[in-house]
Amino acid sequence: MLINGLPGDCISASDRGLAYGDGLYRTLEASHGTPLLWHWQWQRLAADCAQLRLPCPEEALLLAEIAQVAAMLPRAVVKIVLTRGVGQRGYAMPDSCSPTRIVSASAWGGYPPERAQQGIVARWCDTRLAVQPLLAGVKHLNRLENVFARSEWQDPAVAEGLMLDMSGTVVEGTMSNLFIVRGGELLTPPLDRCGVSGAMRASVLDAAANLGITAGEARLLPDEVLAADEVFVCNSLAGIWPLRQLGSRQWQDWPLTRHLQLALQDGN
Amino acid sequence: MLINGLPGDCISASDRGLAYGDGLYRTLEASHGTPLLWHWQWQRLAADCAQLRLPCPEEALLLAEIAQVAAMLPRAVVKIVLTRGVGQRGYAMPDSCSPTRIVSASAWGGYPPERAQQGIVARWCDTRLAVQPLLAGVKHLNRLENVFARSEWQDPAVAEGLMLDMSGTVVEGTMSNLFIVRGGELLTPPLDRCGVSGAMRASVLDAAANLGITAGEARLLPDEVLAADEVFVCNSLAGIWPLRQLGSRQWQDWPLTRHLQLALQDGN
Repeated sequence: MLINGLPGDCISASDRGLAYGDGLYRTLEASHGTPLLWHWQWQRLAADCAQLRLPCPEEALLLAEIAQVAAMLPRAVVKIVLTRGVGQRGYAMPDSCSPTRIVSASAWGGYPPERAQQGIVARWCDTRLAVQPLLAGVKHLNRLENVFARSEWQDPAVAEGLMLDMSGTVVEGTMSNLFIVRGGELLTPPLDRCGVSGAMRASVLDAAANLGITAGEARLLPDEVLAADEVFVCNSLAGIWPLRQLGSRQWQDWPLTRHLQLALQDGN
Repeated sequence: MLINGLPGDCISASDRGLAYGDGLYRTLEASHGTPLLWHWQWQRLAADCAQLRLPCPEEALLLAEIAQVAAMLPRAVVKIVLTRGVGQRGYAMPDSCSPTRIVSASAWGGYPPERAQQGIVARWCDTRLAVQPLLAGVKHLNRLENVFARSEWQDPAVAEGLMLDMSGTVVEGTMSNLFIVRGGELLTPPLDRCGVSGAMRASVLDAAANLGITAGEARLLPDEVLAADEVFVCNSLAGIWPLRQLGSRQWQDWPLTRHLQLALQDGN
């Protein structure tokens, strides 16, 4: 683990990342120190910094630090955390901020491959996402809703929970973005009111465009998800997981999802 | 500063308090190591722990630690932070959690006394509070909304900003609770959808009951705040600050607010 470029594993107890969740993070896979999906990860990281008005580190610096922490690992989970650093007491963003940058890696065996191959069982979460356009899309450090949602079930057979916003439209999974296929078209909820705009989501939309698949954003009700021809969730570590079961609804094959899985494997 | 009872000033970079804002805090005043408003602080802390499903430390332990960090300070700001501790990757609350407990103190001269005496200038914030009943009332570590709201103005003449929720009703100040006086009655917004239930708010409601002042909760629109006979904000460090200006509305005397200020001075 590197903290502001130096080996270490602790941060100031006065860091605003702890005090207010005033920061953001990304989790990504790296192979021998090379981050996967980096184009999208970097794009999202830079966009999130801008939205939180947080200085964004140089891309080259981040890549060097990822290489440093993950070089010896054939397959690693890398986590980047950026916070607004140590500040005086009080909520106001300091005039000049010395951000805290944490880059860490750990060896990783990957998720069970059958999740991508045979599909997963998902559930609906009771925990709703609050509507907050100011923070929507950002992978910030205010994640109590996800903590509560993911704590709704213990059954290891259930791989993901889907979350609605306060108005009852479907937004995402607790740790993933959501897509449905309807009449050959790919649809994913807009993230202008809540939710996290993931790197894999961006990559899927890009892959769809390259494959000539019509794709776009749409507010979806739970019934529209249940009525979809195919449903999948995705994130940078999981890739694409088709849903084979959601409540009493079952799916058995996912032709368009398979197409995207293959395209993304090739493209990575 | 004490971290889990031991002198120190840093926490694990893997703490869930940093990763997800998975924890809570309280800020309070102490005099020679004795916390003020402790009855209400402790009540709120215990309630917040329950709402976040976080183990609550023993009251005697917290009091001993506050005494230890603040004993040498005639007047101190004490901050207590409790997090769900270091956990494995992933949002789910761990089966068994080793919470992190941070108790720190710093010398404090108090806010300028004219704020309580002559009233403050307040403003309306554009940043809205998202509606999330699951977390409403809790002083948790997910405070990006407060950070954004408090960063809307730099003018030191403006002491506080008032925040609305997404539905447009008034909730609180960025760092305080709000009360209005209307026809001799004391009203404060309910905190069942968002906002922080402060110790001073509880103390004010209690003082009002003891003084025979009718007090209760009511959803208030901005116009109702502007039309009020008196308006004040309060928190544990500030005490009670009457509003002398909010936008173009001005107030010149605050008889009931004065009554409460005096009662709380005596009661402390």
